Amino acid sequence: MKHVLLARVQDQPGVLNRVASLFRRRAFNIDSLTVGASESRGWSRMTIVVDATRTSARLVAANLGKLVAVEEVTDVTHLPTVARDLALIRVRCAPEERGPVHDLVAGFRARVADVGSDSVIVEAAGTEEDLDSLVKLLRPRGVLEIVRTGRVAMVRGGNNGTES
Amino acid sequence: MKHVLLARVQDQPGVLNRVASLFRRRAFNIDSLTVGASESRGWSRMTIVVDATRTSARLVAANLGKLVAVEEVTDVTHLPTVARDLALIRVRCAPEERGPVHDLVAGFRARVADVGSDSVIVEAAGTEEDLDSLVKLLRPRGVLEIVRTGRVAMVRGGNNGTES
Repeated sequence: MKHVLLARVQDQPGVLNRVASLFRRRAFNIDSLTVGASESRGWSRMTIVVDATRTSARLVAANLGKLVAVEEVTDVTHLPTVARDLALIRVRCAPEERGPVHDLVAGFRARVADVGSDSVIVEAAGTEEDLDSLVKLLRPRGVLEIVRTGRVAMVRGGNNGTES
Repeated sequence: MKHVLLARVQDQPGVLNRVASLFRRRAFNIDSLTVGASESRGWSRMTIVVDATRTSARLVAANLGKLVAVEEVTDVTHLPTVARDLALIRVRCAPEERGPVHDLVAGFRARVADVGSDSVIVEAAGTEEDLDSLVKLLRPRGVLEIVRTGRVAMVRGGNNGTES
């Protein structure tokens, strides 16, 4: 099953490599991995989605926590989280279709971020399921290109961090 | 300077590791790396932001394109792009402050995605500059935790992809 791991990692060369190697050694395919600035300078936060058994996920999370540049590894798979993904979707779109495409994506809290001569770029943020549905809806029009961030997640309610 | 590379990569174990190793060998610190589903099954798209000289960036892009699982590497640094980042921000927030926080973030096309007893999770999508400004504005209230996706980018106007 899909496991979602959160980790605080040092923002320095080689950290991503060490993390990727760890998953590679265990032959896990990483579904998605995002890494971005955290609340503290010099530290990033990683969200990793990986397909693994519960035992394997526990082992890899423990090993991840042993890497020198990694702190606070949490398996949030079974915790209530806010989970979001962001997509840019290039859709074939003749000028006269811009109105209908605009209306169609508005229902997904998405919007047209760029207009080209025969295509538009739709920008959407939501759960992965939301974005999958939006892509499915746009497919018949001709989906030319998709870039997605992969999932970021944060535990609901509680406070995992320290104030900066 | 910051270089932004886009690549289409096979969705299989070890690809992320090979990409990370390549940057590691050249001692580049990856500012951000995102990888998510593309328009074609079995293929992902990666957006990599790296701090490098123009020459180094050109070299690493060429080497990236030689990896067996990697296709279509483009340095979009000097091209017009739609660039977006997504952030989840946990902010200290007493119940009576929820209204003001809601109003404050609404100006950034952001919204409150979860309400806890003494904090809320703000969800925002925009340019990195937009998100940096939002975080700065929220700092005085107490920013407890941030998770960001890192940048995704797509070239404006043109068509880089093949229809799926």
